[in-house]
Amino acid sequence: METASDVLASNKAFYDAFERLDLDAMSRVWATTAPTSCVHPGWALVHGRERVLASWEGIFKGTERVKLSLHESKAFVSGDMGWVVLVEELEVAQQGQLVRAFAQTTNTFVREDGEWRLVHHHASPTPAPMPKKRPTTLH
Amino acid sequence: METASDVLASNKAFYDAFERLDLDAMSRVWATTAPTSCVHPGWALVHGRERVLASWEGIFKGTERVKLSLHESKAFVSGDMGWVVLVEELEVAQQGQLVRAFAQTTNTFVREDGEWRLVHHHASPTPAPMPKKRPTTLH
Repeated sequence: METASDVLASNKAFYDAFERLDLDAMSRVWATTAPTSCVHPGWALVHGRERVLASWEGIFKGTERVKLSLHESKAFVSGDMGWVVLVEELEVAQQGQLVRAFAQTTNTFVREDGEWRLVHHHASPTPAPMPKKRPTTLH
Repeated sequence: METASDVLASNKAFYDAFERLDLDAMSRVWATTAPTSCVHPGWALVHGRERVLASWEGIFKGTERVKLSLHESKAFVSGDMGWVVLVEELEVAQQGQLVRAFAQTTNTFVREDGEWRLVHHHASPTPAPMPKKRPTTLH
């Protein structure tokens, strides 16, 4: 389905900007007229385009290098919005340390001027790719 | 803004269904024509209306009682979609144990037949309400 692959292409552009620590590319990924919000792993909500981009700027400044692998990406589309759910695998060099981590992530996009642009990123720490079974209890 | 409060009303209907462990009410909250997906705390993605509702049924069956408090709810609207970011505080009685837990959560809604219906729930375990500061490092 074309729209799902278009959403996945915008999702890839987001991770390319992230991996290159490229703030200009990151700013082009995020919506400009729709509201924007972001939950970085383990952090409170950041919202508003300026604050969201400032949060990425802070992360990029504190990161020497990041290598990303994306697992189990699945895209959903409903009209002019779409979302991708995936597991990020990150190898991050920061403050002279190499950290390997996983995040269960939702990226939500809206169609803006014919382009799929990011409006919400929610990445939550997870120990490793998760078992493919159904929950029977909470927490 | 009326639409934001409408999205928050649908968000409340979701948590009312959850707290009452009411599967019929829960099924009315979720979209019927748009795609649906759900990330329960610590679990892999569940998608498709039947599987999503089956996952809630499993949770409800394994839960004797749940008390929910919602913190820091913030709603965003863009056209016919909206999302709420919040911190869930849960007191869950399951398997004879009382568990207290927090989850950083995104709930995404689309307007379907004039109603805001849930298309995606992503709840991630979090130790407690998070500090209100900006991230400078990842993980």
